[in-house]
Amino acid sequence: MKNYAFGIDIGGTTVKIGFFETSGKLLKSWEIPTRKDNGGSLILGDIASSVDKELAEQGIAKDDIEGIGIDVPGPVLKDSVVNKCANLGWGVFDVAEEVRKLTGIQNVMVCNDANAAALGEMWQGGGQGHQDVVMITLGTGVGGGIVHDGKIIAGNFGAAGELGHMKISQTETMACGCGKTGHVEQYASATGIVRKATEMLDASDRPSMLREVPYLSAKAVFDCAKKGDELSMEIVDFVGEKLGYTCSLVSCVFDPEVFVIGGGVSKAGDILLNTIKEHFVKDAFHACTGAEFALATLGNDAGMYGAVKMVLD
Amino acid sequence: MKNYAFGIDIGGTTVKIGFFETSGKLLKSWEIPTRKDNGGSLILGDIASSVDKELAEQGIAKDDIEGIGIDVPGPVLKDSVVNKCANLGWGVFDVAEEVRKLTGIQNVMVCNDANAAALGEMWQGGGQGHQDVVMITLGTGVGGGIVHDGKIIAGNFGAAGELGHMKISQTETMACGCGKTGHVEQYASATGIVRKATEMLDASDRPSMLREVPYLSAKAVFDCAKKGDELSMEIVDFVGEKLGYTCSLVSCVFDPEVFVIGGGVSKAGDILLNTIKEHFVKDAFHACTGAEFALATLGNDAGMYGAVKMVLD
Repeated sequence: MKNYAFGIDIGGTTVKIGFFETSGKLLKSWEIPTRKDNGGSLILGDIASSVDKELAEQGIAKDDIEGIGIDVPGPVLKDSVVNKCANLGWGVFDVAEEVRKLTGIQNVMVCNDANAAALGEMWQGGGQGHQDVVMITLGTGVGGGIVHDGKIIAGNFGAAGELGHMKISQTETMACGCGKTGHVEQYASATGIVRKATEMLDASDRPSMLREVPYLSAKAVFDCAKKGDELSMEIVDFVGEKLGYTCSLVSCVFDPEVFVIGGGVSKAGDILLNTIKEHFVKDAFHACTGAEFALATLGNDAGMYGAVKMVLD
Repeated sequence: MKNYAFGIDIGGTTVKIGFFETSGKLLKSWEIPTRKDNGGSLILGDIASSVDKELAEQGIAKDDIEGIGIDVPGPVLKDSVVNKCANLGWGVFDVAEEVRKLTGIQNVMVCNDANAAALGEMWQGGGQGHQDVVMITLGTGVGGGIVHDGKIIAGNFGAAGELGHMKISQTETMACGCGKTGHVEQYASATGIVRKATEMLDASDRPSMLREVPYLSAKAVFDCAKKGDELSMEIVDFVGEKLGYTCSLVSCVFDPEVFVIGGGVSKAGDILLNTIKEHFVKDAFHACTGAEFALATLGNDAGMYGAVKMVLD
């Protein structure tokens, strides 16, 4: 094993680059803008330049780089080929091969961002000590990742762990971002939580602290629930019920050791975790009710950690 | 690799013993009764005697046996420990270790019967040519198995692939065999199909061929549907809808290459497979709609095949 490696998380706005010791220690991280001009054709070149510059500045030879792990906000096949990534303007192409050409570093692996986060959290975050981990990322949307025996399960179409698109309501009439209806993302994303709050506030004149907040957000809902606001507590229960039920379905398929809950919404902390767990135990198959639940701890760095872990295994 | 191996499928009534070449060819199979007296303490001894007798008759030395794979109708941890198997009277114990002692053969592995069937079908049945397979077994109950990269995923509590206990109805009032409500097994098992047929026949005077059959069974429902009986066709559509929906949920978690449909109910053939697929495509996340569907082909031998495959890998 060489001494260093890169873990790179490509997002729609910025690229986070992590420079790691192969022991797993993050030595330094920085961001560069994600240039989406020209169909995203500049992104990988920008990354290669930034990597080269860093190595030159530190006087480290490429021979001392174990590899580069990269995650992207879209489905990835065979640790290598991105299968359309609308956020970046990308169609279907072999990202790993392109990065090999641009950097001269041969050990390059690519995965989906939610999968990378799951692997990162297993390795050095909320899922530490486990090898079979399901991560659910609650942000603007809902993503997920499945780690089995310490490795990402990507899926035949790169869609394993797409937990946000499990259909959990048969009666929903509004469409999910993907076009179908009744998906987890419609209820448990930050957007979905605000939608539910708006619906409940509009449906009656019930008093609620939420009527006083300057900006209705998922954070405001959890904050008010923690202060005992009844309507907010009902929304939290609704979200926890949807997620607990989702986890009960996942358990019948994959039966993980631990569910790690991450993403911006998870900053709500124990109130969210405990509500999910309570509903999970109610819905889950009896054999699985002992599954653990944990909060993610790596925040926005989870992707970098998971990305680099791929090339260290 | 030695020349021979055993694949043994322990059921509630009979034990099926398969004697294989390690190339994968089944040379001979036979059955012995499952003696459940004395808390099932005689079962493994009976198996060891039968194995010894066969080897003696054929003049084959134990040194020439690669291993013994065994599947049981209950959850199994770490390819070895049965975690309660009510059907056989067993509590928690290390079946692999016991069989090593009884036979003197050291390479012994144990798994759940539905998981073994999934592995067997991947290897030499309906899932041939694939490495990521989900099998659903439709019998008196509904079982399932998940194979990833050619290996069984057993799950942290031995409950991975318990697809029959996914909760797919929020409104069901009757209890599943496991005590909870709204599970796949309540709709797609042979028992569930007969229940649905009885409910529909009792609910009205609608004419149906089913009113004339001597014995109302899942087979009768599919047979009448194939003859164009409208009420039977509605039941088939109902079952296909429940299973297609279930597969759509599984795809968001594991995204397999193929779903293999087995068990007695699957003898209905293409009418069942096509109905499941039709509903799957309607419900599934867009990326996964291309998943394949196939009928199981090994019948009751699938368990023996999967069991022996474990010790050949």
